[in-house]
Amino acid sequence: MVSKVKLNDSNSTRVPAEALQTQLSSIFEAVGCTSRHAEIAAKVLVAASVRGVDTHGVANVVGYSKNAADGTYTVPQETRVISESETTALVSGGNGIGLVSAYEAMEIAIEKAKKHGLGMVSIKDGHHVGMVAYYASMALEHDMIGMSMTTAAPAVRPALGAKKMLGTNPIGFAAPAGEERDFFLDMATSTVASGKVGLARRIGVPIPAGWGVTIPDGGEITSPPDGENETWALNPLGNTREQGSHKGYGLSVMVDILCGVLSGGGFSSKLDRGENMSWVMAIDIGKFRDIDDFKAMMDDMIRELHDTPPLPGAERVLVPGDPEADAMDDRLANGVPVENGQYAAIRERAAEVGVEVVI
Amino acid sequence: MVSKVKLNDSNSTRVPAEALQTQLSSIFEAVGCTSRHAEIAAKVLVAASVRGVDTHGVANVVGYSKNAADGTYTVPQETRVISESETTALVSGGNGIGLVSAYEAMEIAIEKAKKHGLGMVSIKDGHHVGMVAYYASMALEHDMIGMSMTTAAPAVRPALGAKKMLGTNPIGFAAPAGEERDFFLDMATSTVASGKVGLARRIGVPIPAGWGVTIPDGGEITSPPDGENETWALNPLGNTREQGSHKGYGLSVMVDILCGVLSGGGFSSKLDRGENMSWVMAIDIGKFRDIDDFKAMMDDMIRELHDTPPLPGAERVLVPGDPEADAMDDRLANGVPVENGQYAAIRERAAEVGVEVVI
Repeated sequence: MVSKVKLNDSNSTRVPAEALQTQLSSIFEAVGCTSRHAEIAAKVLVAASVRGVDTHGVANVVGYSKNAADGTYTVPQETRVISESETTALVSGGNGIGLVSAYEAMEIAIEKAKKHGLGMVSIKDGHHVGMVAYYASMALEHDMIGMSMTTAAPAVRPALGAKKMLGTNPIGFAAPAGEERDFFLDMATSTVASGKVGLARRIGVPIPAGWGVTIPDGGEITSPPDGENETWALNPLGNTREQGSHKGYGLSVMVDILCGVLSGGGFSSKLDRGENMSWVMAIDIGKFRDIDDFKAMMDDMIRELHDTPPLPGAERVLVPGDPEADAMDDRLANGVPVENGQYAAIRERAAEVGVEVVI
Repeated sequence: MVSKVKLNDSNSTRVPAEALQTQLSSIFEAVGCTSRHAEIAAKVLVAASVRGVDTHGVANVVGYSKNAADGTYTVPQETRVISESETTALVSGGNGIGLVSAYEAMEIAIEKAKKHGLGMVSIKDGHHVGMVAYYASMALEHDMIGMSMTTAAPAVRPALGAKKMLGTNPIGFAAPAGEERDFFLDMATSTVASGKVGLARRIGVPIPAGWGVTIPDGGEITSPPDGENETWALNPLGNTREQGSHKGYGLSVMVDILCGVLSGGGFSSKLDRGENMSWVMAIDIGKFRDIDDFKAMMDDMIRELHDTPPLPGAERVLVPGDPEADAMDDRLANGVPVENGQYAAIRERAAEVGVEVVI
């Protein structure tokens, strides 16, 4: 089975999160980001690595900073409000670094929610936002519920369809608990995120039937395909008609509507690789009920879910956010393991853009 | 394969939608609903039947009106606002008919969205709301996007879990198109809705592996179980770890948070059978961008999805809402087919409560 590559002392180097923040921020600033934007971009990538979501983590500074340097991303960038109401905004990410646009959009949503209960922002002219649930989780410290979505160029077929038409179009959702760990959902609307197929290819293991099919004949794939091309597609969550593929597909189109059509930036099949439209929302819990009562009920729910007897062969029932919180506990205490090849690449990139290597 | 029971001239009777509206409304009024609430409850049930969602359709007037008559549901009922802000409300459904509470909650959300861009209502003290996407679709005529969710007592196991802990916790989402038919998503977060298992039992056909498992050993079920009990559970959408069961599970808990925890009415495993907490949201599209431009892009997206080449063996690629719109075209023109046993039961119930039988 394909799971995460286990990082250990022989294949990775532990680096304190603070040093990563400093290093990434200095690289982003060296390629033209404002210091505030450099800090934001670094913060989002470090947060993903700290939570164990390494595919969206610190190694991405290399590609992102190259895109900024060569003009693929526009820096310095501006998150420009095109239209807004008390509770809503349509913003242009100005074709800058996606992490920054989504972060600033969620700041706008939170400010609106503080004043009026709810805030929602749809984002056009955007690029890759990394771990989408990061933006949802920004709501937590304000005692709010957060939700976030993002699109991408086609990688996934519609239910019954034999062509890539949709991005993996992930959904993020975060809600604060009290004594328990916060609820944190980060999920692609495809059976599996693209990164897992690439991972299987790199480490040379088969993938389970159900993740993707050959195009146009719909044959099962168990050998990870060699990169993104038109000969195969990921399946929508549910995979087959009988197992609910119309549901994963339907959720994916919902993401396209909120991110791409509501913003006017375009739905998945109009997007080029590297283009991503996004959407964020903040909900002020205190406008509905007492926040401590809400958190106490969250705790109660999370405990009941943890106490569910597991299926034979399963160790325990998790709550969305548990794996990320486990990783965070370890990585904040012991440093963030950075795979050795990526560690070298980040150091090399720092030297290349002329900043001090501090990791 | 289990699909919908095909209603035809030998097993059903076609009744004009208007006659069903009159009949159901008179029954609800006879058992103590106000005339406005009787009309609403009838309208939601007739809409489900017109759209071909017969499990949530007109036949439910029998059980609902009995619940109202015997005090299980409180009628006349009041949708009482417990707390509110410009954009949000927490309401009590007063333990009345769930259809009415959810309808009135969505009216509140739409009014708030008209004034402030967004409206969101979480509903406690509620009962069964029928076809959940109905409430989302109420937004369409106001050029808004609608979203709706509802919970239920446990029927579904968590990912990796061997106990029913979650309702089928469905999600509804609707967005207006221009010349094309509106986008309309109505999906349980389990692999399959409970009604399909009951249907397979009634018509005596096996169910596909993947819909449910035996409890506590997790064995596959292909013979439809004999009703709701503790010996089996539905699977979350995704079913297995490798196919993304944590995603269906995660979405289900998200529904519990917005409906049950945000309202304070309680999450699934605290609910008795017949208790349902709900949540609705309205988004004023015009606050983001020109509504005609939005609808034109929706049309473009829907056409591209329809034009997707189908997998071998599949007829065509659908867009969520197509099956319901096809049923609506037929049923508004030719009458709503009501299965003969249910037709007799509705007529009998009308006579029982002392109203004229008009169907």
